[in-house]
Parts: sequence; structure tokens; C-alpha cells
Amino acid sequence: MTTGDQAAFRLLTSADSRPRAGVLRTAHGEVPTPAFMPVATQGTVKALGTDDLLALGARIVLSNTYHLNLRPGVRIIRRHGGLHGFMGWEGSLLTDSGGFQVYSLGLLRTLDDEGVTFKSHLDGSPQRLTPESALAIQEALGSDVAMALDVCPPAEAAQAELRRAVELTTAWAARCRAARARPEQLLFGIVQGGTDLALRRESAGAITGLGFDGYAIGGLSVGERKAQMYETVEAVAALLPADRPRYLMGVGSPEDLVEAVALGIDLFDCVLPTRMARNGGFYAPEGRLNIYNARFKEQTGPVEHGCECYTCRHHSAAYLHHLFQARELLAYHLATIHNLHFYLRLMERLRQSILDGTFEGLRRDFLATFKPPDEEVRRGQKQRWLALRKALSS
Amino acid sequence: MTTGDQAAFRLLTSADSRPRAGVLRTAHGEVPTPAFMPVATQGTVKALGTDDLLALGARIVLSNTYHLNLRPGVRIIRRHGGLHGFMGWEGSLLTDSGGFQVYSLGLLRTLDDEGVTFKSHLDGSPQRLTPESALAIQEALGSDVAMALDVCPPAEAAQAELRRAVELTTAWAARCRAARARPEQLLFGIVQGGTDLALRRESAGAITGLGFDGYAIGGLSVGERKAQMYETVEAVAALLPADRPRYLMGVGSPEDLVEAVALGIDLFDCVLPTRMARNGGFYAPEGRLNIYNARFKEQTGPVEHGCECYTCRHHSAAYLHHLFQARELLAYHLATIHNLHFYLRLMERLRQSILDGTFEGLRRDFLATFKPPDEEVRRGQKQRWLALRKALSS
Repeated sequence: MTTGDQAAFRLLTSADSRPRAGVLRTAHGEVPTPAFMPVATQGTVKALGTDDLLALGARIVLSNTYHLNLRPGVRIIRRHGGLHGFMGWEGSLLTDSGGFQVYSLGLLRTLDDEGVTFKSHLDGSPQRLTPESALAIQEALGSDVAMALDVCPPAEAAQAELRRAVELTTAWAARCRAARARPEQLLFGIVQGGTDLALRRESAGAITGLGFDGYAIGGLSVGERKAQMYETVEAVAALLPADRPRYLMGVGSPEDLVEAVALGIDLFDCVLPTRMARNGGFYAPEGRLNIYNARFKEQTGPVEHGCECYTCRHHSAAYLHHLFQARELLAYHLATIHNLHFYLRLMERLRQSILDGTFEGLRRDFLATFKPPDEEVRRGQKQRWLALRKALSS
Repeated sequence: MTTGDQAAFRLLTSADSRPRAGVLRTAHGEVPTPAFMPVATQGTVKALGTDDLLALGARIVLSNTYHLNLRPGVRIIRRHGGLHGFMGWEGSLLTDSGGFQVYSLGLLRTLDDEGVTFKSHLDGSPQRLTPESALAIQEALGSDVAMALDVCPPAEAAQAELRRAVELTTAWAARCRAARARPEQLLFGIVQGGTDLALRRESAGAITGLGFDGYAIGGLSVGERKAQMYETVEAVAALLPADRPRYLMGVGSPEDLVEAVALGIDLFDCVLPTRMARNGGFYAPEGRLNIYNARFKEQTGPVEHGCECYTCRHHSAAYLHHLFQARELLAYHLATIHNLHFYLRLMERLRQSILDGTFEGLRRDFLATFKPPDEEVRRGQKQRWLALRKALSS
């Protein structure tokens, strides 16, 4: 038995093939998969308008229940007919359950069988989230896809903590499923278990046994090594039903997307392309370029030669270098457009190659060319981003 | 004798009428006047792309020679074929001479007969600007309208200082005129003299005697009272030739624009609409609204009812209130679009009313409805803006 409409997901490849191509149908349109969901944490993809998202060809975005519930609050969003009306977005929307922020932002006070108590990052006020309230908030937001409330421990958590997280996640998934009141909203269950494959198997069995419209793999963007992540994704994906979409939460970098698509994943979200954009990191086939680099100061051509994004069609690398140096707001806008274009076009190319039977060649070529930034560069960019975030929120 | 093309400005109203409607023709198109020029200080109208400027119907923008000369420098802009290519802007461009920032930013070291020496606001390095170099920089930038280098003392300057400023401004205007090497670039002279009408008459006589493609009234956005400003504008405008465009530099608020158009001014620039936008100030027929105000928190309609700007057509006041509260970058973008729409539509309506012979009615109605913010609100908004600017530049 499953919830929702069986036909919400249509697989275009054979049931036993991985990678997969499909179509996710929501109350707000069709989403060709595999798909990347830009992150609109507070009801806006940072530095972009919904007109920009449409121009980029985005079909689905993700918003964070945790943030929107605290500010502006569900009541005000409901008065706009839901989050679509509030944001002015007519495409599909997925909301997370709000649980992840509680764990990842270090706000947790207590975790009990009934739910989580935490403090608001805005004013420190005590807040409570239960499976039922997490679902009720998402129903009020009116998203097209809601996520069950899960428990997401850090990658380095002890075995006992991982086990309890899996058990609570299963119990809460059942309660979310029972509390569901809005049939047109798809509901996805989440598989937990860290990088412990036995626990993952147990979790996958329990969650798929409950029956959801789609299945997410949680807890894999929180510090584990890449090899472990891929191994876990491969093991879990093999346990999920072929006729339901598979969503790898919070992942990832371009090479992660290529590898996870190869393992049979359909949906992704990650703040990386938008966050890196505000930090001057531009994705290109050869890797992530740092626009602050002196070599861009005089480059009258685009950052990425041949790129067809708005930014590269209209502006030189030297202009972008200047805008970043001058801290002009347009810098963050133009860089975000470029990076989302890169991500969305990559997903389109992966999908087409799957349909054409040329995926392996594309994967090999991409990974041979794309050079992930080394640790030193990554740390430097993270520090610059933290400084910018601090400046903007001071 | 005049420089440039006599037909660069075509007056559509009779030579003795004020207000005036006309068309300024530059190497990059026609600019219907009266016109407001959005300010693109560092080669971007803050928070907007050139696509947004086109959508708003902007025909001419102003850029600051001072800022662009220091960063990225003329050499890099020249490699893009000039500022149009660097910015990706195909409409008309006016550049100032760079002198105003030297005085207004408090960077002046010495003023001598030959030019000004000042220190860079970026690194404190010594810089020099002469009439010839100010023009050479603007020629390299390739703007459609260049401004002669002037001397712009504060409004409260002593009589002797004002007199010296007028004399140097005349001498430097003559040198700019003589140094001119790019005939397709219009060159405007600037009338100085503070609020001393005798000095203004002397300056206007000297500058118009030299002959320029247009005439600017400088030194009137630096602290004088509004009544004095209007009195000075009226006196100077009456001394300027009818067949040349008249540009009131750095002014102003919506009511200033209406009043100065009534006195025969054709061109304006001011950072007010874009700066106020980043500070949460939204212009509307009733005055400047503060989006942070609690009454907007739940307003599901637009900030300005009936407004046809992109922002008001797509987003509620509550959404904008939320974006400002959350310090989302989209807030500054959407507010800037609204305010420039307000300014540009106001200029269009003023122009049409002049052509229709209904200007006085429009002026009366506008001034009866539009309530300028009182001093207290103005101070509060200025403080918030300074805090934001500090945060962004830290």
C-alpha cells in the first residue's frame, strides 16, 4: 500500500536500470528527473527572483520549513494561499521537515519519543516540533512535496545514537503518514542509518514498508568521506522501489551529482552552487573558478567560454571580478545565475545521456575534466563566505 | 560658437516656455526629456542588471568617473571598448568629471590653479585630477555625455571660497573645451556659485559664453535649504540658452524633480531612489513608505496599490517586509526596481503633461498628495543605511 497517486512518478528507463530518467508530476507541473532543486531557504533563492528561476528553467525549488515557520510564520504565508503565493513561484516546491536545521544548527535541546525541543536561532525562544506538527506546517505551506520528520545524527555519531535515530525516524514516519490530510501533497519518507550499512538496510526496509510517494536518503551531507557516501548511496538505492523517486538530501557538488545519478538517484538539493556564487566561486567544466583570482582582472571574455547563461552571454570575467572587488550586489546575482545554470544544464545533459544510452561516456568525460577544489581552496572560500554572512547579518 | 552637434538637443516646446519637453540625442540613442538618470556609481546601478534597466525603460544612466578611474581603472574599461562594453549597457551614458567626489567625500588635499590633488578612498594613495585628465578619462570611458571639471564648495562656504570656485570652474571649463578630442561625445559645462545669485549670474555668463552642448547647475545638493535651491535653480535656468539641455546635478527627491521641471530643468540624477530602496524606503504617490513598518507585515496586496512595476505586480508588501527582515539580497533588488519605476514613470508623466498642456494640474495634484518624510524619519533611515553600507563594506 502506498499513499498518494501511483502515477506521480513515471520512470522512462527500465525498472532495473541505473542511472534512471523519469518525470515527477506534482500539483504544480512536471519535473523531469534526475533534477537538482535550488534552495530557497527563506522563501527566495538567494539573490534571485522567481523570474530568474523561470529563465533558468528551474522546475522545482526547495524551501526550509524551519526558517519559514519562525519567520514570517505559517499564518502569514497561509494568508497568501501558501508558499507559492507568498514567493510568487508557480513551479513545484518541496519543503523539508524542519528537523535537519535543529540538528545541524546546534539548536537541539531535547530529543524524546514524541518530538524535538529546540531554541529559535532568531530569538532563542523554545520551539517544539513533532511528526504531526512538522506535517501540519508543511500542509499549511502548501508545498507539492512534504518530507516526514526524521532524526539526523552527525556522521561521527556512536552506534547507539545511530540506532535510536533509525528507530525514531521509523516511528515518526509512521505518524507522519497517519497524520496526512492533504492528498495532493506528496509525502516522502527518509532512510537514516549513517554509513552503517546494516542499519541502512533496516531503515530502508521499515520506511519502504510503510509506503511513501518517494524516498529520501538522509544524513549524508554531514561530514562523512565521499567514498563512504557513495557506498551508502549505492547500498540504499538498491533497496528502494524502482517506481518511486529517490532523493539524496543536501548533496552536493557537481561530481557528487554525477556519481549519485550513476547510482540511481533522481532528486538533489544543495546550497553549494548558490553559496559558492556569493563567495565568488564559479562552476565550469574544469572545476570551480575563483573570480577574485588576478587572472580574471583583465579577461574581456566570459568566465566560462561557450557558456550560454545570461551572465556569460552579457558580461566579461573582468566585469564580474570588478563587481566582486567592489562588493556590488549585482555580483552575487550574476554569479548565482551562472552556477545554477551550470547545475541545471548538467542535470539536463545527464538526463538526456541516460535516455540516449550515452551516460557512461558523459560521466567519464565529466569526471576526467572537472577538478574539485582542493581542501586549502575550500577552506579559504568557506572563511570568506562566513565573513560575508557575518557582515550581511550584523 | 558651440561645440558638438547643434541638433543633439531638440526642444518640443516653445523656446520661452518652462517647463520644457525635448529629446536629447546621443551616440547611443534618444533620451526624451525631462529625464531622470539612475546612478551606476561603480558601473552598475546597485542591485540591478542592465536587463532590469531596459525593462524599466531607462534610456540614460550616470556613472562616476572618480570611482571607475580608481577601480577597475581606465585601462581595463578601455579594453572592453569603453564603459558601455564593460557594463553591458547599450543605452546612453553620462559620466561626471570626478571632481564632486573629491569634495564631497572629504578627500581633498590641495586645490590649485592647475587641478586637485586628493587621496584615494580605497588605499589612500595620492591622486591628481586636472581639467585635461578629467576629460581624457571620460573620453576613454566613452560616455555619451562628459562633464567639465568644476570646483564644488559646500553650501556654507565663505564668499571668497565661492568666488574662487566660480573663477576656477570657468578657467577649467575653457581648458576642458580646448582639450576635447572626441566630437561624438557631448560636453556639458557647469555653473557654480552656491546660492549667491550674483555669483551664479557671473558663472552662467562665463560658462554659456564658452559654449557647450548642455549646461549643468552644480553645487545644489550639498546642504542648502529647499527654498534657496529652487530660487537658485529658477535664477540660473533663466540665464541658460533655450536650445541646450539643462541638468540639475545630484537632485533629488520626487518633489524636487517636479519643482525643478517646473523651473525648466531637463536632466536629473540622484542616488535617493536606489539608496532609499536598499534602506527599505518605497516611493509611492503619498510619500516614502517604510517597508519595516509593522503594518506591512500582513499586507497581502502590493506596497503601492495599482503600481505596475515588476515588484508590485508579483509580490506582496508582506513578502517584501519578510525579505527585508531576513536581509535577503532579493529585497534590495525588488525595492530598487520599484523606486526607479516610480521615478521614471513620474518623469514620463511630467513630460506628457507638458506636451498636453496639463503640467500645472499634475504638479499641483502631486505636491498636494506627496508627503516628504519628516526630519526624524529621514535621520533614522540615514542611520540604517549607514549601518548597512558599513556591513557590506566590512
